Amino acid sequence: MLRAMELFFIGRIFRPFLIGTFFLVGLGMLARAVSADPLPSWNEGPAKQAIVEFVRGVANKSSPQYVPPQQRIATFDNDGTLWAEQPVYFQGFFTIDRVKALAPQHPEWKERQPFKAVLENDMKAFAATGEKGLAEVIMTTHAGMTTGEFEKIVKDWLVTAKHPRFNRPFTNLVYKPMLELLVYLRENGFKTYIVSGGGVEFMRPWTEKVYGIPPEHVVGSSIKMKFEMKDGKPVLTRLPEIDFIDDGPGKPVGIQKFIGRRPIAAFGNSDGDHQMLQWTAAGKGPRFMLLVHHTDAEREWAYDRQSPIGRLDKALDEALRRGWTVVDMKKDWKKVFPF
Amino acid sequence: MLRAMELFFIGRIFRPFLIGTFFLVGLGMLARAVSADPLPSWNEGPAKQAIVEFVRGVANKSSPQYVPPQQRIATFDNDGTLWAEQPVYFQGFFTIDRVKALAPQHPEWKERQPFKAVLENDMKAFAATGEKGLAEVIMTTHAGMTTGEFEKIVKDWLVTAKHPRFNRPFTNLVYKPMLELLVYLRENGFKTYIVSGGGVEFMRPWTEKVYGIPPEHVVGSSIKMKFEMKDGKPVLTRLPEIDFIDDGPGKPVGIQKFIGRRPIAAFGNSDGDHQMLQWTAAGKGPRFMLLVHHTDAEREWAYDRQSPIGRLDKALDEALRRGWTVVDMKKDWKKVFPF
Repeated sequence: MLRAMELFFIGRIFRPFLIGTFFLVGLGMLARAVSADPLPSWNEGPAKQAIVEFVRGVANKSSPQYVPPQQRIATFDNDGTLWAEQPVYFQGFFTIDRVKALAPQHPEWKERQPFKAVLENDMKAFAATGEKGLAEVIMTTHAGMTTGEFEKIVKDWLVTAKHPRFNRPFTNLVYKPMLELLVYLRENGFKTYIVSGGGVEFMRPWTEKVYGIPPEHVVGSSIKMKFEMKDGKPVLTRLPEIDFIDDGPGKPVGIQKFIGRRPIAAFGNSDGDHQMLQWTAAGKGPRFMLLVHHTDAEREWAYDRQSPIGRLDKALDEALRRGWTVVDMKKDWKKVFPF
Repeated sequence: MLRAMELFFIGRIFRPFLIGTFFLVGLGMLARAVSADPLPSWNEGPAKQAIVEFVRGVANKSSPQYVPPQQRIATFDNDGTLWAEQPVYFQGFFTIDRVKALAPQHPEWKERQPFKAVLENDMKAFAATGEKGLAEVIMTTHAGMTTGEFEKIVKDWLVTAKHPRFNRPFTNLVYKPMLELLVYLRENGFKTYIVSGGGVEFMRPWTEKVYGIPPEHVVGSSIKMKFEMKDGKPVLTRLPEIDFIDDGPGKPVGIQKFIGRRPIAAFGNSDGDHQMLQWTAAGKGPRFMLLVHHTDAEREWAYDRQSPIGRLDKALDEALRRGWTVVDMKKDWKKVFPF
């Protein structure tokens, strides 16, 4: 009985201290959360400052810049904005590797363009086959299988394929500062979407793991599909026919088709993102438009107005004229890749 | 000083009671949450039991039926599944009302089919104009304006239009048991999507308010859009050309296009939902397929195998054969509409 009494008293005496301790620990965590830099790979400068100011305003209920969570839609281009795109879009490497993997089943390709050029790594001859050649190669490698089969092909390729310059898996060539930005936005109630010219089914198998962006938040170009029964099981077969090109003026269309809500923030790096940024900028309320400018030949690549891949020309002019945020990769990013 | 001492003692003495009270209140809330019926408009029976068992299994980490939250995708047909669809799909009423509203600007319609038939309420003559007539009426009323303008037209119509039988706004004719089911699923970590044959831009303006389903979770049929500058502002213009028909075999295609993940639960009411249920059923792990069977002519309508609207025939056969859940509206639903 004495023991119980003792425990009771000790409990009663210590409780205020215990509560106090929890309270202080809680305060400490709060302070850390407030003071921790959400974008450690970004150098201090106007780009980082603009991002943080925008996000704080949007997420703060007592700010005039406040935006209700359901309207916090942010759209990101993929190639050149979230991961690299040189010397060619990574889906191009995938396509070439697929032609080579399928070649043994198609001995006739050795003598037939555009396949002959691809198999001989003769990119000049491949380019000479024009859009028709490109379309034939894409459809041969991307269509004719079920959606499940294609998903497996993409996943298997990502495990083995390596980027020629960095000798690393392509999914390593994502931008660390942009990964931080995605997390920062989601922590502040944003839904982060990819809106890319790349093939939607080429991205969906890995975006959740790599970017934390689930398949249902990926908008991209697509080919048509057909529902059919195969050995008594329903499948979706990929058809050799373009369904939708999610690039340039196609991006606002893709946003309306797939999301049905105008973003309040949009992130791109090329003229292919120009209309997405214009569409975002034209909405009411707080807006944020950002272009990643590739200025770092040493750590990544330097290119803009003259580049056949990821050309940034008209969108850069408009960004400078209208005060959209332009990231100078060399200056603004402490680190480029996570490795 | 004495006062402070007194307060200190009173505080110390009462604190355990206060904490105890909070604890008991907390326990009480917990008990209520556990025992509260999440589906009060559903009568006890096999349909309700099947739903609750499925959801409990999927959401319970220690259950063999557990499914990680990111895979908890549930897709719902709209017409006849979430709201009524008789005597014609409600978008049909909208279309007819739009023809009448636009008629003063088109005096020639008085003598021109299919418009003449619509203006004279001669549904037989309208039907005689066939698919071509229907397409012309739909394109005239649904295309040629910007997405923003169309959204406003739909919202304005919903405020004034009334259902001929119930003399109430169409958005009142939603099924209370299904509203409860949507909430129940979301509370258990599901993402709830609409996958409807109806026009996606006809649904998006009101689904968030009525169903708690945001625009980005609405998949439907669509017409093409074009990005252009109008008076220096970017707009999306709706074009008189079909983009995608999200019905029958189009539903699994729509799911893959827009969501990119196979649902684990699918809800429909007609043969137009048959392939969506087959596609859902063919995935791995726990699955739930449900058909709403319209059996209540008194409170709603009774129809199935012979109905031109919402025909339920082949899907019903497969549901009965494979043990999918079939809701008998008359027996299983305590209430049909919220009013």
